[in-house]
Amino acid sequence: MTLNVGVIGTGMIGQDHIRRLTQVLPGARVAAVADIDLDRAKAAADNVPGSRVHQSGLDLVGDESIDAVVVCSWGPAHPEPVLACIEAGKPVFCEKPLATTEEDCDQIVDAEVAVGRRLVTVGFMRRYDAGYQAMKQALSRGEIGAPLIMHSAHRNASVPASVTSEMIVLDTGVHDIDIARWLLDAEVAATAVLKPRRGSRAADDLQDPLILLLEMSSGVLVDIEVLVNSGYGYDIRGEIVGETGTVELAETAAVVIKRDGGFGGRVPADWRERFVRAYDAELQQWIDAASAGTATGPSSWDGYAATAVTNAGVQALHGGARVEVSLRPQPDLYRAAGGTGGKG
Amino acid sequence: MTLNVGVIGTGMIGQDHIRRLTQVLPGARVAAVADIDLDRAKAAADNVPGSRVHQSGLDLVGDESIDAVVVCSWGPAHPEPVLACIEAGKPVFCEKPLATTEEDCDQIVDAEVAVGRRLVTVGFMRRYDAGYQAMKQALSRGEIGAPLIMHSAHRNASVPASVTSEMIVLDTGVHDIDIARWLLDAEVAATAVLKPRRGSRAADDLQDPLILLLEMSSGVLVDIEVLVNSGYGYDIRGEIVGETGTVELAETAAVVIKRDGGFGGRVPADWRERFVRAYDAELQQWIDAASAGTATGPSSWDGYAATAVTNAGVQALHGGARVEVSLRPQPDLYRAAGGTGGKG
Amino acid sequence: MTLNVGVIGTGMIGQDHIRRLTQVLPGARVAAVADIDLDRAKAAADNVPGSRVHQSGLDLVGDESIDAVVVCSWGPAHPEPVLACIEAGKPVFCEKPLATTEEDCDQIVDAEVAVGRRLVTVGFMRRYDAGYQAMKQALSRGEIGAPLIMHSAHRNASVPASVTSEMIVLDTGVHDIDIARWLLDAEVAATAVLKPRRGSRAADDLQDPLILLLEMSSGVLVDIEVLVNSGYGYDIRGEIVGETGTVELAETAAVVIKRDGGFGGRVPADWRERFVRAYDAELQQWIDAASAGTATGPSSWDGYAATAVTNAGVQALHGGARVEVSLRPQPDLYRAAGGTGGKG
Amino acid sequence: MTLNVGVIGTGMIGQDHIRRLTQVLPGARVAAVADIDLDRAKAAADNVPGSRVHQSGLDLVGDESIDAVVVCSWGPAHPEPVLACIEAGKPVFCEKPLATTEEDCDQIVDAEVAVGRRLVTVGFMRRYDAGYQAMKQALSRGEIGAPLIMHSAHRNASVPASVTSEMIVLDTGVHDIDIARWLLDAEVAATAVLKPRRGSRAADDLQDPLILLLEMSSGVLVDIEVLVNSGYGYDIRGEIVGETGTVELAETAAVVIKRDGGFGGRVPADWRERFVRAYDAELQQWIDAASAGTATGPSSWDGYAATAVTNAGVQALHGGARVEVSLRPQPDLYRAAGGTGGKG
Repeated sequence: MTLNVGVIGTGMIGQDHIRRLTQVLPGARVAAVADIDLDRAKAAADNVPGSRVHQSGLDLVGDESIDAVVVCSWGPAHPEPVLACIEAGKPVFCEKPLATTEEDCDQIVDAEVAVGRRLVTVGFMRRYDAGYQAMKQALSRGEIGAPLIMHSAHRNASVPASVTSEMIVLDTGVHDIDIARWLLDAEVAATAVLKPRRGSRAADDLQDPLILLLEMSSGVLVDIEVLVNSGYGYDIRGEIVGETGTVELAETAAVVIKRDGGFGGRVPADWRERFVRAYDAELQQWIDAASAGTATGPSSWDGYAATAVTNAGVQALHGGARVEVSLRPQPDLYRAAGGTGGKG
Repeated sequence: MTLNVGVIGTGMIGQDHIRRLTQVLPGARVAAVADIDLDRAKAAADNVPGSRVHQSGLDLVGDESIDAVVVCSWGPAHPEPVLACIEAGKPVFCEKPLATTEEDCDQIVDAEVAVGRRLVTVGFMRRYDAGYQAMKQALSRGEIGAPLIMHSAHRNASVPASVTSEMIVLDTGVHDIDIARWLLDAEVAATAVLKPRRGSRAADDLQDPLILLLEMSSGVLVDIEVLVNSGYGYDIRGEIVGETGTVELAETAAVVIKRDGGFGGRVPADWRERFVRAYDAELQQWIDAASAGTATGPSSWDGYAATAVTNAGVQALHGGARVEVSLRPQPDLYRAAGGTGGKG
Repeated sequence: MTLNVGVIGTGMIGQDHIRRLTQVLPGARVAAVADIDLDRAKAAADNVPGSRVHQSGLDLVGDESIDAVVVCSWGPAHPEPVLACIEAGKPVFCEKPLATTEEDCDQIVDAEVAVGRRLVTVGFMRRYDAGYQAMKQALSRGEIGAPLIMHSAHRNASVPASVTSEMIVLDTGVHDIDIARWLLDAEVAATAVLKPRRGSRAADDLQDPLILLLEMSSGVLVDIEVLVNSGYGYDIRGEIVGETGTVELAETAAVVIKRDGGFGGRVPADWRERFVRAYDAELQQWIDAASAGTATGPSSWDGYAATAVTNAGVQALHGGARVEVSLRPQPDLYRAAGGTGGKG
Repeated sequence: MTLNVGVIGTGMIGQDHIRRLTQVLPGARVAAVADIDLDRAKAAADNVPGSRVHQSGLDLVGDESIDAVVVCSWGPAHPEPVLACIEAGKPVFCEKPLATTEEDCDQIVDAEVAVGRRLVTVGFMRRYDAGYQAMKQALSRGEIGAPLIMHSAHRNASVPASVTSEMIVLDTGVHDIDIARWLLDAEVAATAVLKPRRGSRAADDLQDPLILLLEMSSGVLVDIEVLVNSGYGYDIRGEIVGETGTVELAETAAVVIKRDGGFGGRVPADWRERFVRAYDAELQQWIDAASAGTATGPSSWDGYAATAVTNAGVQALHGGARVEVSLRPQPDLYRAAGGTGGKG
């Protein structure tokens, strides 16, 4: 009855998922961990009674006592265990990106299609956020008519000096790309990058902020402001403009305080505070689906499309011009609609 | 075509009305001023080319070149010039209170009724505020059903040490009393005063905050928090709870700023900032009506009723018990409905 | 490692807690149920693999395989199993009210004090709501100075015709009473009931709305509007006015929609939508504490104090006058501060 | 003491300014009108006691009894009377655009520079709006650091079928262009037009919505959504993202109503409702300056720059590519900073 989960990668996000599987959500237990840093794996296992340590991700996937796998290693290491899970018929939750190259994504999609059923879920947690779900509902109920434009802003309080302009597209903007695809039920046909004045707190060669433009297959235009050194907090904004109205994310503050000549509320400090419940819901739904031997939510196809767009975005960042995105034909496997899942 | 206005009382509010008549609003000019402090009157007149100084308010009212009068002296001095204006058939704008005693208010009402037309307007400027007008409109359109409860809060940033608990009822709470009567289209049947914990910044014998309860003739209950040392700003709040919904004053900030981990907007610093446009609209409508030889807006009856309630409120403040308010029968003159005017 | 929980009372709230223990929260399982309606108990057990049905609540408490108990029967039936749990040394979560009479509450407090450790948690779930927790934090951080007044409004969309005026105090207002005691860290010294105009949709003898006044031991005044037929939704409002500022619950809508000439957001439909996460957090913390053999959160003392105040409130409702509340001396057991727990 | 104003053009906006000069603002009177449609001019004059009708705008400017002129004719007819006013040394308020070609604007600038003092004010009323003024203040006080990005949205409820895509840039977007220049204290260096999916209610060849991009001389990027058939109201949005924070226009609703499961407020129906006070303030400041023989507020230079940008915008609309904007050197006359006036 309890899902035996193996976790590959025990860094920050891996440890957070281990905590979630162990202390927050019912229905699963962490039965094994693996990490390229064996000491870190052992330290993680020490906190979870009854969990084993494997020498490699492949060993973990091959462990017969493991029912399902969570992949939290770094991006380039994702395809190997994901492919092994597909081969073994084990549901796998893979943190974004599914893979860093379209070729690797292709291979995963091909493998899953060959198996004939969904086994892979990609960690685009925003789809589980109450705000985005209410936006999706407003759209599907026709409350604002057909969408025409989407405005998005993704602001972090600050980032380490190691963050590069490419990472702003690949790791930060990717969330806005996926949520736009999901909300608008359309693929990205082309992308471009605009370069506003750089903030003085950005590192020397960091294009911060930047604006990522997406032309959707439906003609909807998406502008995404990404600002990773906002200075004031972690602020995720989104508005969809439709033919008869608009829908917009509300502020999330639980209270309003009046003092010193003003009123005000809190802006979240970071993504954990902002999306804690989305992460919980994401993994709970994955546990429930995996316990039934299947997968829901963002699919390999979504992971593939996101990588195709972010890679085009990096090309646009460097080249300066608009870059078209051409996707392979979508396999039938990913056409089943519904919930937070694949698009039709 | 231009209304020749005489202003009695050239203190702070008098000077503000002179500025308004002279620099802000069309259709009137200040032709004469009077003040018990003759030097202050002269100083005020010096700023207004062509204005005379009278030795007394009665002299000013008697000046044949004066078409209409604004009374801004202190409360006990209001009845004399107001009665003189009625006798002279001159429209008069009287700052609140109309008079400090019910007897004096009675006399003014009697005099106006004897003349058979409205000449008096009392300075309850809130009726001209966009927020309260929208509340009134929501009620009259039936958007929230019949009113059941009204919550009101009247908060000043701070007050001088000279302010007494009685003044909190008489000078501060009176605005909430009038606006409740106007919005709810009902008289006050009884009042009581509740005494919460006193703030540490209140003077020793000042009951700050206090809660004034009004039982309306319609059964609607009104609770008015008055807090004159809020510390944070001038904050006027109001909500009416009806049978099918509620209507509430919105925040008035023109912009929202995000910084330092939060979002926020401005609370007005004082009544001037909060009600500047209400004051302008109030006096403009008075000028327009006075130019036509009549009066609109809050009437002698409204002034009388407010004084009856505030005096009962002071009695309740001291006695601790609920005090009934009994009003004389309302003369027909004040039954004409409409606009910001008298109630039916 | 898994807490074996017995649930007494399998009505609406009992079934909801069974769902929560079974599908939402980790660390517990429902091992047995009991209900005065045996068929209902069996139906509930049928949905939970491995759970037994007991003939009575006392049988369930006596079941050696049961580690801890959740009591969801109707109020008058609460004391018996709660006392049995205390005697058996088993942690017990009791829905409000702890008991309907002060005498029964007294007996529970005495029994728990005799045991010398906390075993009882009372189901005042608001203490776990993000909004109220942020209010508490603002107060404890001194962001608004010492509290002077608290305004509370508790509005249901509608209630069945069977609801009486007494129930408005006992079952509805009790939540506002507990949260006021917790936020303000003070006991209620006296209470009174005000009776506004009744809404047309209230049943003939239902006093809806009513205003419950609480005078706290600290002098803080609390006014609680309870309106159980608001017509528009389930709207929980709260504002604390302090010496230097105020803190207020924010709207909870996740998105704002603009259409048809306006902007707007959703008001929750009912208490489930509004407090779903508070219920989850409440029971999770209880599971965690019970697994450690203890209890946290609202205590027997809180249950006792709430019953003392609601009973005084009913007396005030009928008698019309202010009613003083006198509590027994608080046992040391309940003086431990911290978290959502007892007051010092 | 009263400014004798002549109004050229008595269409909708002209009549609105006549009403404003006559009934709303002190210090001026309408002494003469002119209109290419003589009957319309006569009808307008009939409503204003004492006003004459001139056969042409030039006749009106030449009328010695006229102190200052308001030009409300259609755009191509603006330069002639404006130049005549400059020649005559008469202050002139010219509705936007100052002129439809850069050449005509040039000529006006040259003429005014030759005179050596400002006589021309262009009707960019947004600079007088409380919201934009608060944004400007937040910037100048350094509350959000140096600006990096500005997001603007300009949404009309609907427009007549006669409106063209060019007019969306020339007549609608021009307001956002001017306010961006003023708020950011920078010129536009280049512009581009993005073309989102068209709404189904847009006429066949109308690009509605469109996004106008402005690259400011300071590097700040401005994106302006213009949607002239929003369906839901007249909604003006603006946000400036700075190095340490953001400032954004707040909603303008005076009350919030709760009913039918939601809360909400009003979006203005049209530009009159939204900007009524800005129009009043704009013209009052013009009257005050004109009475002193000078001009303040948006200058000929601002009119010239706006026309240069909108014409580039139309070129970008048709050509599809980014179009650079090159301005002549700014004459010293327009370097005086301050208030709502010219930039340095």
